[in-house]
Amino acid sequence: MMNMRLSSPANDYPWVARPLIASAPMLNIATAKLAVAVSSARGIGFIAGGYDLSGLEAQLIEAKHLTNGANFQDSHLRQGPRETPVLPVGVGFLNWGASLEIALPLIQKYRPCAIWLFAPKTGVSDLLPWVQAVRSELPYGIKIWVQVCCLQDAVESTERLQPDVLVVQGCDAGGHGFARSASIVTLLPEVLDQLKSRESSLPQDIRKPFVVAAGGISDGRGLAAAMILGADGCAMGTRFLASPEAQIARGYQNEILRASDGGVSTVRSTVYDKVRGIYDWPAKYDGRGLINRSYEDIVNHEVTEAQNRRLYEAEKLKGDNGWGPNGRMTTYAGTGVGLIRAVMPAAQIVTAIRQEAMERFQRPIQSARL
Amino acid sequence: MMNMRLSSPANDYPWVARPLIASAPMLNIATAKLAVAVSSARGIGFIAGGYDLSGLEAQLIEAKHLTNGANFQDSHLRQGPRETPVLPVGVGFLNWGASLEIALPLIQKYRPCAIWLFAPKTGVSDLLPWVQAVRSELPYGIKIWVQVCCLQDAVESTERLQPDVLVVQGCDAGGHGFARSASIVTLLPEVLDQLKSRESSLPQDIRKPFVVAAGGISDGRGLAAAMILGADGCAMGTRFLASPEAQIARGYQNEILRASDGGVSTVRSTVYDKVRGIYDWPAKYDGRGLINRSYEDIVNHEVTEAQNRRLYEAEKLKGDNGWGPNGRMTTYAGTGVGLIRAVMPAAQIVTAIRQEAMERFQRPIQSARL
Repeated sequence: MMNMRLSSPANDYPWVARPLIASAPMLNIATAKLAVAVSSARGIGFIAGGYDLSGLEAQLIEAKHLTNGANFQDSHLRQGPRETPVLPVGVGFLNWGASLEIALPLIQKYRPCAIWLFAPKTGVSDLLPWVQAVRSELPYGIKIWVQVCCLQDAVESTERLQPDVLVVQGCDAGGHGFARSASIVTLLPEVLDQLKSRESSLPQDIRKPFVVAAGGISDGRGLAAAMILGADGCAMGTRFLASPEAQIARGYQNEILRASDGGVSTVRSTVYDKVRGIYDWPAKYDGRGLINRSYEDIVNHEVTEAQNRRLYEAEKLKGDNGWGPNGRMTTYAGTGVGLIRAVMPAAQIVTAIRQEAMERFQRPIQSARL
Repeated sequence: MMNMRLSSPANDYPWVARPLIASAPMLNIATAKLAVAVSSARGIGFIAGGYDLSGLEAQLIEAKHLTNGANFQDSHLRQGPRETPVLPVGVGFLNWGASLEIALPLIQKYRPCAIWLFAPKTGVSDLLPWVQAVRSELPYGIKIWVQVCCLQDAVESTERLQPDVLVVQGCDAGGHGFARSASIVTLLPEVLDQLKSRESSLPQDIRKPFVVAAGGISDGRGLAAAMILGADGCAMGTRFLASPEAQIARGYQNEILRASDGGVSTVRSTVYDKVRGIYDWPAKYDGRGLINRSYEDIVNHEVTEAQNRRLYEAEKLKGDNGWGPNGRMTTYAGTGVGLIRAVMPAAQIVTAIRQEAMERFQRPIQSARL
């Protein structure tokens, strides 16, 4: 298989434009609608499979339906005239919970163009059975994306899993990531340098993965910065929360538009999992979200964990009023939340950011006023 | 005074090359030797005045001496033929502790080209007396730099203090900054957008400050990323720890060369102040340093704060052996620590990074492999 792998997304994903822009598989939010919209704008959209995969098949069915109604060239989705077309969206898994036995037949049946693996329970080696099964049992050109939050996992993933795409996530990201982490400003160059320096000691048929930056990228400037740091593209989560295609409560979306100064208005914490009764994330992870009463009350020792959880349950009954600094509903968001000021169709976000990034390169020195 | 202020460092600091590179006023480390070396390479070096200013006059005397022996053009340091020359280095103050009464006569006597204000005790307005005194009593063209860690302080500082330079510090920075903070990936664009959108509502003679990015910038890629995000230049701290001019223990410097994966190997904490008996930083601040026993023992509840401090004092006796993951000596460092692999003369660091950054712009798209 190894020598059949292609290194360029222009070949792997013929509908994709440069630089590559992906929408992240945000749990409960990244549905078929969002994913297909992103891919239709020549990006790659991901459906969230999450950790229990309960809603995945319904989303894959919808993605197939939406793809048929969208403007994809048939030749872009078939690797040969007799091949079943590939679904031009990927599926993301939270690997500490997701079952390979459930996932594999669904992938086989619906043929998503990629899977995105993240957060194995004990370490990189947990992902080996996934990679082996997908590559041996699904030889239709599906690409494997692996998300990492630190240098060590980046190196280990590259060498042991040989992913097609390495998603390098920095600390600005909304939702889950490493509690202790660097931003892409330092993580990305360090990962790239390390991969390069180890290249010569690896077998020649192992290609360097395509590197996608994630964490804080909210507009064309962020994408351009990621590219100049060495990334081949970017994945965005928070920015797509402000799209009509995201499956998101109005109260949540309004908070994304309202909030600013994301370094101060968000925080990394495990409290937003605990209030929802989710205790199974591996210990290194927490999630970044807008600060609200669930967080404040715990850090100020106003409530116990059990009380906090009950208060969260009660808050659900308030509908859209449960969000906001005085609300309790979990509002995952990255530090780039203040750069997001309007709801825009997902396809338009992709097109605009791609163009903004390229424009940034056309007058880089002038733009810096020096 | 206001209309006498110049907006371009090419005029303010005639010896400076573009893009501007500054060395941060790192407490105990950024001495005259480092500052003059950085300025001699057409950057701007800062001497650390710190919070008690006890060693400042000696450093200013040394800076004057070193400047006389360096290659500065006399016309670059004098604003007119009869003017006393300006010292081509700045002085940094930790404003929660520094005394204006002590600082002012020293500035008047030695004429540093800039002062860098950071971390006022209660808020931006604490800095007003400094700005007013410096502008009214020292009208020799001294420039005021103000360092901020969030959007709100950036806006308030710009409007109330009208600094010549705004240093926007992201969470990757080593040493002190906001405990809750974003990286420059999101903070810088948000600050720039906000300043721009408020421009029209301000009096016309208030100029937009020159914006310098700090936090995680360790090589030319970081500087290029900061520029593409909209910065006019950068300030670096950690990178200059690996210069012979830094006043730093060998054990500390060796750790900077050894450490990698800075998001994981460093942590933001107040423990590194507490072990040294420093309790006066305002509540929003902590410091990023390499993880060692001082930190591990506190988070694992192995020692009390008092025990930890005694253990730190005892560790001092070990000399260079007190540093390292099993040591206790404070080792402030940014997440970019893994990008720093050799000790280089400070002037060479400045020259190399300036060139690397410019090269990055000459082939931006190719460098991204797409």
